Amino acid sequence: MTTISAGTAVVDLNAAMAEAARDIDAALDDLLPRAEGDEARLFASMRYSVIGGGKRLRGFLVLEGARQFNVSRHAALRVACAIEMIHAYSLIHDDLPAMDDDDLRRGKPTNHRAFDEATAIIAGDALQAHAFHVLAQEATHPDPAVRIELVRMMARAAGPKGMCGGQMLDMMAEQASEPLDESAIGRLQLLKTGKLIEFSAEAGAVLGKAPSAQRHALAAYGRELGAAFQIADDLLDATASAEEVGKATAKDAGAGKATLVGLLGIERARLQAESLVAQARHHLDGFSERAEMLRALADFVIARRN
Amino acid sequence: MTTISAGTAVVDLNAAMAEAARDIDAALDDLLPRAEGDEARLFASMRYSVIGGGKRLRGFLVLEGARQFNVSRHAALRVACAIEMIHAYSLIHDDLPAMDDDDLRRGKPTNHRAFDEATAIIAGDALQAHAFHVLAQEATHPDPAVRIELVRMMARAAGPKGMCGGQMLDMMAEQASEPLDESAIGRLQLLKTGKLIEFSAEAGAVLGKAPSAQRHALAAYGRELGAAFQIADDLLDATASAEEVGKATAKDAGAGKATLVGLLGIERARLQAESLVAQARHHLDGFSERAEMLRALADFVIARRN
Repeated sequence: MTTISAGTAVVDLNAAMAEAARDIDAALDDLLPRAEGDEARLFASMRYSVIGGGKRLRGFLVLEGARQFNVSRHAALRVACAIEMIHAYSLIHDDLPAMDDDDLRRGKPTNHRAFDEATAIIAGDALQAHAFHVLAQEATHPDPAVRIELVRMMARAAGPKGMCGGQMLDMMAEQASEPLDESAIGRLQLLKTGKLIEFSAEAGAVLGKAPSAQRHALAAYGRELGAAFQIADDLLDATASAEEVGKATAKDAGAGKATLVGLLGIERARLQAESLVAQARHHLDGFSERAEMLRALADFVIARRN
Repeated sequence: MTTISAGTAVVDLNAAMAEAARDIDAALDDLLPRAEGDEARLFASMRYSVIGGGKRLRGFLVLEGARQFNVSRHAALRVACAIEMIHAYSLIHDDLPAMDDDDLRRGKPTNHRAFDEATAIIAGDALQAHAFHVLAQEATHPDPAVRIELVRMMARAAGPKGMCGGQMLDMMAEQASEPLDESAIGRLQLLKTGKLIEFSAEAGAVLGKAPSAQRHALAAYGRELGAAFQIADDLLDATASAEEVGKATAKDAGAGKATLVGLLGIERARLQAESLVAQARHHLDGFSERAEMLRALADFVIARRN
């Protein structure tokens, strides 16, 4: 890809991501309980952390994956919202004092700072349950086999063999006497963020009842993309300011966080991310020009500045 | 029911509940990740709170509901395990310092005391995801429509319009300047514990593709039973010792907890629980003698001493 076509793609991608983010926010507003009644505080806390923030990488992947197979945008948006609810819950819990103890997230106070710890814990729990509720309803897909397959995949990606397992490894790495080696860091990140990104990329193929070769290609794309994304995130932490990123930075090194950037150094980590992006793009070789956004997204994850 | 027949029923019920608890523990042992590998601490923490503890009221309801419709015990046990995972996760999070701050649960240290707060938060999160994963797998029922209906029901019962909503009301009630009135307490308890108990009673009918009248009767039975159970729990807190119950008692009054016992006094609360039990039994009128355990269970919830 030349600089010029990359530049063009980035412009289109930004517009598409902004449109997706708007659509996802509107759908979330629709799918989440209104902040009224006796439990208004809970509903407000859920909404606070999931509506109107973040790049919507996961939701965008669902929408673009679904586009390959002519899935209705309405159905794809429901799955995009479910995955964004899971992602938001994980951030709420990750930010708690007993975990990373963060005050700032997406440029505003973390959930437990804006509300309180108990509310943040419950809001996270409620978002996880609600995400499964959204997937399970008929509006997501008329075929129950498709809906239950999405539930099965998301539950696995978010559970002990997925995100929660990675979260645990991350907590333990901070307290370990020896730093993790490259393969342990790779596994930690695959579990903590990779599995959910993989699910996001694959979900559209499930919604579209795609042939298994295409489904597996999208999943593989998501896996490489997720790994590249994590390195890019760590690179941002190491090199950007908090103002640019909207959350505290340069805290990985201080907290003894296990990252590939810490292990390999900035330049080698960047090379590795670029290699992962190339592999991610390679998995899309069998796809039409409709996958152009997914290709551009792969470039974007390592080019982004926030 | 005479004293003698009640006595007989209680003996049978105890044996049946003990057998169900053993079977549920064996199935949980099978369904939960082994405590090995790098995430062993997470898996151990999940197992610590879900295996080998509690009366298994919810799991027993699933098994006995399923028995009405000749559902395979293997399938019913999977759903029983899923609901016990949800229940266990809610207790882990409920016991956290930011919530009820309890040190003792089921006669042993609470999860965050045995492990640590971060592990307890993640273990609860992982148990919730894993519960949905268990429901979603084909081994639970060959018909995806049945599995997705169970997921939909459990997600709703556990989510913002169910257990999490009740949890939030409970937290807010402790900080409120005015005590809750009877109807507000009833709603709090319906959400916090009733919805999950209702789901447990109804799940067997879904597994057995029961006619909707029977399904609704079991759900109604579960609703009344759940309300009676909650009053019985509060009565135990007010009248029994910690040694008998296996967790701290007499703390509701101290913590300003909103309970019907606090509002109505012990005697009127007991009468109300008995009335609920009679209604619960009434919903089983159309069921055969196979529902005898469910009838005995209704009596048991207000007779129990731990």
